[in-house]
This record gives sequence, C-alpha cells and structure tokens, in this order.
Amino acid sequence: MQPLGVAVIGAGYWGPNLVRNFASSGSWRLRWVCDFDTDRARAVAGHLGDVRVTADLGEVLSDPEVAAVAIATPAASHTELTLAAIDAGRHVLVEKPLAATAADGAKLVAAAQAAGVVLMCDHTYCYTPSVMRIRELTHSGEIGDIQYIDSVRINLGLIQPDVDVFWDLAPHDLSILDFVLPAEFAPLSVTALGADPVNAGRSCVGYLTMPLRGGGIAHIHVNWLSPTKIRKTVVGGSRKMIVWDDLEPSQRLSIYDKGVEISERPLDDRARRLVSYRVGDMVAPALAETEALRGVVTEFADAIREGRPARTDGSSGLRVLRMLEAAAESAAKGGQAVPLPTEGKGLPA
Amino acid sequence: MQPLGVAVIGAGYWGPNLVRNFASSGSWRLRWVCDFDTDRARAVAGHLGDVRVTADLGEVLSDPEVAAVAIATPAASHTELTLAAIDAGRHVLVEKPLAATAADGAKLVAAAQAAGVVLMCDHTYCYTPSVMRIRELTHSGEIGDIQYIDSVRINLGLIQPDVDVFWDLAPHDLSILDFVLPAEFAPLSVTALGADPVNAGRSCVGYLTMPLRGGGIAHIHVNWLSPTKIRKTVVGGSRKMIVWDDLEPSQRLSIYDKGVEISERPLDDRARRLVSYRVGDMVAPALAETEALRGVVTEFADAIREGRPARTDGSSGLRVLRMLEAAAESAAKGGQAVPLPTEGKGLPA
Amino acid sequence: MQPLGVAVIGAGYWGPNLVRNFASSGSWRLRWVCDFDTDRARAVAGHLGDVRVTADLGEVLSDPEVAAVAIATPAASHTELTLAAIDAGRHVLVEKPLAATAADGAKLVAAAQAAGVVLMCDHTYCYTPSVMRIRELTHSGEIGDIQYIDSVRINLGLIQPDVDVFWDLAPHDLSILDFVLPAEFAPLSVTALGADPVNAGRSCVGYLTMPLRGGGIAHIHVNWLSPTKIRKTVVGGSRKMIVWDDLEPSQRLSIYDKGVEISERPLDDRARRLVSYRVGDMVAPALAETEALRGVVTEFADAIREGRPARTDGSSGLRVLRMLEAAAESAAKGGQAVPLPTEGKGLPA
Amino acid sequence: MQPLGVAVIGAGYWGPNLVRNFASSGSWRLRWVCDFDTDRARAVAGHLGDVRVTADLGEVLSDPEVAAVAIATPAASHTELTLAAIDAGRHVLVEKPLAATAADGAKLVAAAQAAGVVLMCDHTYCYTPSVMRIRELTHSGEIGDIQYIDSVRINLGLIQPDVDVFWDLAPHDLSILDFVLPAEFAPLSVTALGADPVNAGRSCVGYLTMPLRGGGIAHIHVNWLSPTKIRKTVVGGSRKMIVWDDLEPSQRLSIYDKGVEISERPLDDRARRLVSYRVGDMVAPALAETEALRGVVTEFADAIREGRPARTDGSSGLRVLRMLEAAAESAAKGGQAVPLPTEGKGLPA
Repeated sequence: MQPLGVAVIGAGYWGPNLVRNFASSGSWRLRWVCDFDTDRARAVAGHLGDVRVTADLGEVLSDPEVAAVAIATPAASHTELTLAAIDAGRHVLVEKPLAATAADGAKLVAAAQAAGVVLMCDHTYCYTPSVMRIRELTHSGEIGDIQYIDSVRINLGLIQPDVDVFWDLAPHDLSILDFVLPAEFAPLSVTALGADPVNAGRSCVGYLTMPLRGGGIAHIHVNWLSPTKIRKTVVGGSRKMIVWDDLEPSQRLSIYDKGVEISERPLDDRARRLVSYRVGDMVAPALAETEALRGVVTEFADAIREGRPARTDGSSGLRVLRMLEAAAESAAKGGQAVPLPTEGKGLPA
Repeated sequence: MQPLGVAVIGAGYWGPNLVRNFASSGSWRLRWVCDFDTDRARAVAGHLGDVRVTADLGEVLSDPEVAAVAIATPAASHTELTLAAIDAGRHVLVEKPLAATAADGAKLVAAAQAAGVVLMCDHTYCYTPSVMRIRELTHSGEIGDIQYIDSVRINLGLIQPDVDVFWDLAPHDLSILDFVLPAEFAPLSVTALGADPVNAGRSCVGYLTMPLRGGGIAHIHVNWLSPTKIRKTVVGGSRKMIVWDDLEPSQRLSIYDKGVEISERPLDDRARRLVSYRVGDMVAPALAETEALRGVVTEFADAIREGRPARTDGSSGLRVLRMLEAAAESAAKGGQAVPLPTEGKGLPA
Repeated sequence: MQPLGVAVIGAGYWGPNLVRNFASSGSWRLRWVCDFDTDRARAVAGHLGDVRVTADLGEVLSDPEVAAVAIATPAASHTELTLAAIDAGRHVLVEKPLAATAADGAKLVAAAQAAGVVLMCDHTYCYTPSVMRIRELTHSGEIGDIQYIDSVRINLGLIQPDVDVFWDLAPHDLSILDFVLPAEFAPLSVTALGADPVNAGRSCVGYLTMPLRGGGIAHIHVNWLSPTKIRKTVVGGSRKMIVWDDLEPSQRLSIYDKGVEISERPLDDRARRLVSYRVGDMVAPALAETEALRGVVTEFADAIREGRPARTDGSSGLRVLRMLEAAAESAAKGGQAVPLPTEGKGLPA
Repeated sequence: MQPLGVAVIGAGYWGPNLVRNFASSGSWRLRWVCDFDTDRARAVAGHLGDVRVTADLGEVLSDPEVAAVAIATPAASHTELTLAAIDAGRHVLVEKPLAATAADGAKLVAAAQAAGVVLMCDHTYCYTPSVMRIRELTHSGEIGDIQYIDSVRINLGLIQPDVDVFWDLAPHDLSILDFVLPAEFAPLSVTALGADPVNAGRSCVGYLTMPLRGGGIAHIHVNWLSPTKIRKTVVGGSRKMIVWDDLEPSQRLSIYDKGVEISERPLDDRARRLVSYRVGDMVAPALAETEALRGVVTEFADAIREGRPARTDGSSGLRVLRMLEAAAESAAKGGQAVPLPTEGKGLPA
C-alpha cells in the first residue's frame, strides 16, 4: 500500500506533534512543513530527510504528490486555509476548533462534501484508548440506553486572555460527547450558566446542561478555580455504567454491571412501578498505552482510502461549534435553554 | 442551670434519635413521648425512668413543665402541630422540611415571631464537625469572598415513591448552603434541570445552579443512578478553598491555601488584567467525632436561654423550602431561572 | 431439620454477638447463656423468650438438649472450659485464640479428636465475603501458584497493657493466611522483628516474614504507631493477583489478570530465561454484605451435621498459636528464623 | 563567581541528564563529554557550543580547566575511573552505586580523603523536594525521635538479568534512609529475606528489616511481582509522622501532628505506664516541582567551593553498599541478622 503524501501547515504548538506522527506512520509520507516562519518550519522538519519547507501554501498545493494537508494554525485562519485546500482537491485534517464560527464550519463541511474530499477534525481526545473503548460500549449497545453523561474538568487553571472557561475546556468534553453518544441520544438543547467571581472579565466557572433524546441528560462542569484537579466522566447506561478517571493511570476505566430496572407493568390497582437494582462485578479493562494522535493520522488515512467520512469528520467539528455557540448564547441569556439543530448526526444543517 | 422540659412528638424513624439525645443532655429534661401509636411511644421511652407517654398533644401542652416540643412526624402534619405548640407558647424544634410548602413555612415563622418563641429547624447535617468548621471559615472571612460552591450527592440510590431526586437529596445540600453562605453571598435564583431516563415518573438525576450575590455560583448535582457513591462539596474562596469529602473519614476536610488573584489596575494601555496564582500548603484539620444531633439539642436549649434565633431557625427552614419550590418551578419550565426573594437571610419575606 | 441446642459461655465483649447470631439462625436453638455475672447474662439473654441463664457450666452440660457450646471467655480459661465440654461430649466453638499456649491448644485438638466432637475456632475474619472469595480463588487454582502474601494492618492503635502488637493484631492475618493458603504453600518458618521505640515495654511495631513451601513468601506488618490506617492484603499468584483493601467498601477485592511468566527452556547457549508479562483486565467482584459471624455459626452447625472438621477447626487454631509462639521466639532471638512443624495442615503434631 | 570546569564521563543512559544539567547550571562550565563511543558522545554534546568530545580520559584529565568529573559509566568501571580522577586531583561525582563492592567503595573514600577532593555519590532521589523536606523535618528535630521508617517500592517490574530485586530497587530506599536518618538513629543490623517464586534465578520479592539506634526500626519492601505500583514511605516520629506517597503528585507529603506519649513516671504502685494519644491537624506542604538532578549538580559545586563534604558524600555511598552487602549476606543465610559497622555516619570504617 502506497503511503499518501501529506503537508503540515503550521509549525507552532501542535504542528510538531503532527509532524512527528505523520513522519513515523507507514500510511503517510510527510512532504512539506509550511509556516510563515520558515526557520521554525525548518527546525520542526530538520531531522527528517526529504521534507521540504515553505511559507507559501500555494507551493504546497501545486505539489501533485500532496494528497492531504493537516492544518495546525490559529483558529482564525482555519476557514481560509481549509477552503483553499479543499478547492485544490485535497483532503484536510483541521485542528480543533474546526473554524471560528459555526457558520464558517458549515461552509467547510459543505465545500468538502461538494468536492468529495475527506474533511476531518482533530478531536485528539476521541482517539485515546479510554474514549475509544467508551464509544465501543455505547455504540455496541453493551451499556444499554444512555441515561446520563456527567463530565468534570476542573483545576486551578490558567485564566486565558481571550476565551472563557467554556471555550477553553468544554470543547474536549463536547467532542467526546459527540463521539460516544449514538444519534438516538443526541443532545436537544443547551443550558449554560457561568460565573466570573474573580472579575477576570469572562466566565471562570461554568456549567452546561443538555437534555438528550430518549430522556437522558448530559452535564459538563468546567472550572479554572478549583483547588484540586479532576478529569472525570461518568456514563450511566441502562445495562452498565462507566467511570472514566483520566488522572488514574492504573485504572482509567471502570465498567460497572449495575443498574436500576423499572417494570412498566402496573403491579396492582395502585399501579405502582416495580423498581429493582442490579449490583454485579466491576471490570477495569486493560488498555493499551498508545498515543492518541497516532490513531488520528491512521483514521485520516483510512477514511481517505475507504472513501468514507472520518469518525471525527467535519460534521462532528461543526456540531461541537454549534454546542459552544448555543452555550454562549444561553449563558448570555442567563441560562435560557437554546435548542440545537435536530437533523441528527452526520447531517450538516 | 435548670434543665428545660421537652416533649418529643412522633416516635417513628427520627423520634428515637431525638429521645436519646434529649434524654442524655444536661440541658434538657425529657418529659413526654407523644405518638398516635402509644405502644410505639412506650417502646421508645421505655427504658427512661419518668418519661410519660400519650397520644394526645393537648395533654402534652397542658403540662406547665414542658417548655419546648420537638416534632418528628410526617411533613404533612408539621404545620398544624407546630402552630398548636406555638399557640400554646412553646418553643419548637421541627424535623426538616419545616413544612409541606413555603407558604405554610412562612406562617410558622410569622407565628413564632409573633409569639416570641424559638422556632428551630432540625438541619442535622449543619451540626456535623465538618460543616461547623466550614461555617467558621466562611463567616470569619478566613476563606475570603465565596467564588463558588459545588456539591455532589450521588449513588445508586433508592428511587422514592413520592418525591423526586431534588426533594429527596437536595435539602441536605441546600440547608448546608444556607448555613455556610454569609448573607452577602446568598443565592439570587435557581435553575434546575432534571431527567427521568428510567421512566420512574419523576426526576432521578438533577442539576441545580444558583448564581450568588457577589458574582459567584452554587451548583448541586443529585443522582439516584450513579454507580459510585460521592458526597463531596467544594467551596472556592478568594483566600482559601475547601474540599469536604464526607466519605473520607480520615481526611474529611482539606483546606487549601490556593487562589487566583487579579489585579484590577490596568497594567498598560491595553488595560489587561494581571493574573497571579497562589499555591500554598493544604491543611486537613483534626475534627471531633461528635454526633451532630447532640449539637442540635444543645443549640435549641441555648437559643431559648439566650433569647436569640437558633442558628438553623425557622427562616432557614423557610429559605430551603423556597429554594426547593423554585427548583421545582424551574424544572417544570425546562430550566428557566426562577428568582429567589432578595430580602436577605434572617428576614422572612 | 431440627435445630441444634447451643449454650453461649461468657457474656462479655464477644458473647452478645454470638447470642444474637445463634438466636437468629435457623440451624440453632439457643438454650443457655452462662456467665459468672448472671445479671450480665440475663441482660444479654433478656429479650429472648426461653433462654435460660446460669453461672454454672455443670448445669449447662447436664442439659441433654445442649449439643454444642460456644466459649467467649478470656483466653486463660479456654482450655479448662473447652476440655470440660469435650469430656461431656459436646461440640465446641472457641473464640480465638484457641488457648493460651500451643501446648494447651494441642491438648484440645487431641481431646476433641478422641471424643469424636467438632472443635471449631472462631476466626471470624475468615467468614467475611472477601476472605471467602480469596479462599475460593486460592483453592480452586484460579490464581495459580501462590507467590507471596503481603499483609499490612496498621494504625494509631491502642497500646494494649498485656500483649504486644504481634499478639494483638497478627492473629487476624495469621488465621486468614492459614485459611487461604493451600497446604502445598504452607509456611515453613517464622522470622519476626519488633521494635518498642516509645518504651511501652512491648513491641509496638512488628514485621513477620514466613517463607512458604513452593518458594513463595508471606509477610505481615503490624503497627500501633502509624498515622494512617491501612488494612490491606496482596496475594500474588502465578495466574492472577488479588488486592484486598478492607477499608474500601466500594471495591474491597480487586482481582488482576496480571503475571510474570518465565520460560524454563534455555533460549540459547547463554541459557538465559525468557521473561514475559501479562497485563489483562481487573475485576472487582460484587460481594454480599453479610455478617461474618452468621457464616461462623452456620459452618459450626454444618460441620456437626456432616460429621466433618469445620473449615476453621481446632487444628487451624493450633497452627495460628504455633505461628505466634514461633514469632515470639524469633523476636526474642533478634529475628532468628524459627521453623514450623511440617506435618501439613489438618494434622495436629 | 567563576563557573567550575567539568567533564562528564559516559554518554549512555544517565550521562545525557548530567550533560543537560551541568550545561544549564550557572555554577558549572561543561568542557568535555567522554565516551568510548565518540559518536554517541558527540550526539549528546552536539548542540552545546564549546564542549569537546573524546574517548580518552587521559585527555580530559590533562585539561587544567577541568576541576571535576562526573562518572556515569557502568558500575564495574567506577573504581578505576574514580581513582584515576582522584589521583589527578579532581573532584568526582559518581553515579550510584559508588562502586561494585563495599571494599572498593572504601578505597575511593580513603583516596578522596587523602587527596583532599570532594567525592560525591549521585543519590538523585535525595534531592527531590519531598526527600529534602523529610530531611529537614528529621534533622531539625521537628518530628522528634525516629520510631520507624517503612518503605514500599513495588510494581509489576522488569526482572533484571543481572541483579536481584534488592540490588535493583533497594538502593533508592537505602540512600534515602541514610540521607534522612540522623546519626543517632542509624541502622544497627540488616535482616533480609527474599523469595524467587517464579524461578527467575534471583529474588523477585524482598524484605529488609533494620533495627535502629534508639529502639526504632526500618523496613523496606521491594517487589517485582506486584499487580499495583506503590512508592510509599512512612516516617514515624515521636512528635510528628510523615507519609510520602511519590505517586500522588497533588499530595506527595502529608505531615501528621499525631503521636503516642508514654509517661515514664509510675502512676501508682502497679507502676503502669500512662499512654496518651495526640491527634492534631495534618499538613500537606506545597513543594516546588524542581528537577532533582539540578540540586545534585548545585550541591556538588557548593561542596567544592565551601571545602566540605557533599550531603551525599562518598561515605554515604559506602554505607549504602555496606547495607546492600549485609542484606545479601543475610538473605544467603536465611535471614540471619548481619551487623553494620557502628562508627557512625560520616566516618568511613
């Protein structure tokens, strides 16, 4: 199988990680590193034999062996660069967020669809062994109906100068949510409430609540002011329940065979429901300690070769943007619920 | 100091605990146990020498040595029994909730005020060593301004036949919130969202969000469907931060000397704020292992003798009822924020 | 099935627990509570209809409906009382330690064998759901060969006036060890080292090391001077490994599918061994929350009815005494290894 | 202050770390990297401007600007290389273990003393913020008399082809023990028992027990066959007690104000001792997250400049070797106690 040629655009914070993973992947042949700062690009590409360096995207796109580009520039430039690549018939992997606004994100999704190229969003967290396993459990039906997802991502964190705590931290949780929730449990609306008790000029503590199709609920707590660090997500299902504690390397995932069962048949003339509890074993599966970004570049190649959408395709990036915008709107309106598009996953509105 | 005569009304679930604590307190002389089921009352009082038993509240209230009554009957009867005792000039301790509705609760507060008697609500949790210490820290100013309170009370719990998860679990958190929050950080409104993913006919998972005066926020997560049991409250302050983990007997309270400080002075013409972090030691104070209910009966006696409101007086019980009713209204309206009365703590509206 | 008549001798600390469990067991009919202090015996037996009280063991043993006696008196009296009961043809359950010395213990075992009665030692811990499960895992071969057992039982504990930390705490671990270790992994010798850094006049910190048949090793750490409380036992097997944390009610047992495998075949002329590692899932089994003492009284009845030794029979009590005496001898000799009898389990020496 | 010239000998596993720390330290000027494999040496030194590379130690020692050498070669070569450097009048930092045998180690200590140069052993762990703080607590008297030290260092670890678990893991604990124990609590003897239940040809599980001067005891548990990873040390003192959990980044050190106090005065004619307990607060100090090796190179420079022994001088390296050899001898003799030299710390025997 011939490796695909790829160019990495942007040699800043995230670019070197992409360079390293493309360079070491058998599915890819890294051809270019492109950055306005060509010294930086050269430093990143330097130790790799035949990788060329340029400040000019046009030069990259005129190379017929470049089948795909990976964009790791600031979010404000994603739309322009991605459109250029799509127009040139290239497949594109975009660092999250997909674009600066949902409107722009929708343009990218539509353009990629029209051009018949793969547009993938680099939701790296989704390719960790833990999240991959959660997705298997939720999509195979093994955990049953999704009852709730509760995610906590808090610590004494750097207060960002430009974004609030929702835009800084919640994209992780929202992209994971989108990845693990089957369409029949998709979020219906967003209620967000934030607080800025330190007068930072933006929310430093935030709560997101999202009723789900099927009667369940999702909730995210993000917080820059917590004395302790917590990265924990609970997924409650009708058959099993999952606790994912990302700070517990020896037991990241715990899968509980626990549940509540309610018999719908009226028991007697009082028509009371019968509630029963199931408390079985807990299993903490052995998980590989593989780098998530390796899974990202592999999935990108596989989607291109198989002519299918990537598992975190442009639409998933767009859905995350829509949830973030809905959250911002809700928070601005004091926590009023803001509905989400209902077309279902995979269909850009 | 002469012990005060007291009668316990209700010999069901909670009554025996009150009987035991009044009987062993030097501040009190237990004179009556009153219950429709006098066999039950006798069983509860049996081992105690001179305690009399009756099914008739009138008999109790005609005993001039009864200075106070403690009511531990079902909530539906609280209003009638409490009013009867107040009308007879007796001080009253009422098991939570104070009354079945906030309107009834307000009547009780007004009646007690008019009669000049002490009306106290038995918010037992507030008298645990952990919560007492948190109150000292919040009221003394030691933790600084309250930035947020985040409380989680979840486990695979019994689904109650008559109440939802908000009314079952949140009263604990709300009474603690009311107890530890100084008036200048009182809650302004309630946004509640619940879910019933098991078709139990009532919310089994619930989230309560409450903006606070001063810019902070309070949040409560109650859940009957969690595979793991958590009872944890974080109080973020501008000077210190507290984690209370009630399931960690060896380290229930952790007080962190951590914080974020924002300098209000514009640093330069871009007027950016200066953010700095403080990370100091953590202290886990040694706490006595005393029974909370002993603190309740002592506080009741002290309030009577000193002619002052109890620390969990009728007004606090009324505020908790108002928050619960606001939560129910908000949940029924899909999470619309419901404002709380703004008169301040201590002043019934 | 006719319940067996039983008498409880000793109404002090442990007697009431035996009384409660015999009285509520369908296998037993409690007939007597016997104590020098008949008031105490009466208080313990009081609420139970037809239980008689006496200070005279002779009276108990002359009751033909008493098939068995349970002895919960101070250790110094165990030998005399147990021998009297055995001589009278009664089955006997003895609180641990079986006797004050191994020599006395051996007498009891021999007498019971001669009389053909069941002699059982109340090693209560062995009947907890956790230890029962560990025994199943070790005796079924599921965990493979026993590589080591490491047990830690430490906290800031009461310094006993009469016994050192070995005699106070290690009997728990030694009786568990004896219960879970198959005979082919029995301990071969004891090396004990203690310290008395507070000048209490007896060891307050102690370490016991016991090489096992088959090449493994057992180790016990007991300590009255530890700032934190730990009750943890690890059982390393060639197929699986168990961690039992008795202070973690939500996950007491963790069974790891982990191991090291060494290929015995020389790999090449350097004859190096091939080491490989296996890291599979961990399972935390759901365990019933039953009272251990209920299992003790049931096993006592079953052993009598089935004419077989109890699972914690007199011999196991004797082996524990021998290990304790060997530990005392070793500690007195500065940690010299003291061999244990090699006859194997089940065979009194 | 003029930086001191230094050469790093050995560019294998540890050498690059030394190179990085010497190169970035203001106290040092790195002049040479010396390794038989000069390509390797060049790769390690490559990015650093004026560092020269050689395979010849003689060339290094003939450079008059080299004041000190740091040796990071295999242990078997430490003695020869260190003696050569000492003979050339250079100060030497040696990676642990100081030498292959205690006899060799003693030669190095004597040679350095005769030559008047600093001989320092790179016990890196001792320069972590946690261990530095423990040493302050033990040497300042703040924790009082040392009652015991209990250290556990276990996991499912790589079985080493050449050394047993004692030589692989215990040097960490022994060097820490030597570092934090004041001379009046120095170890008196070593009892070691190991087991090889997997037939690896060497001990895979080991226990080391060491009575201390003053009546206390030290104990080390090292294990390659544990399903869970533990790195925990408890230091019990008469005034305070310390728990160091190196795998708990958010709370590595916990300092308990707990203790047992025994009044020596006879209380009455029964002459019983009065035992009392003190249970105060626990403090988890904020610790800097600095690299330990930076502390090593700074201490090396300071010791040279101040003409004093380094805190982990050659004698400490020698004491660790003696404890390891005593452990090997004890284990070979089935756990017989092997005495340690009693000359006291700081004095090579």
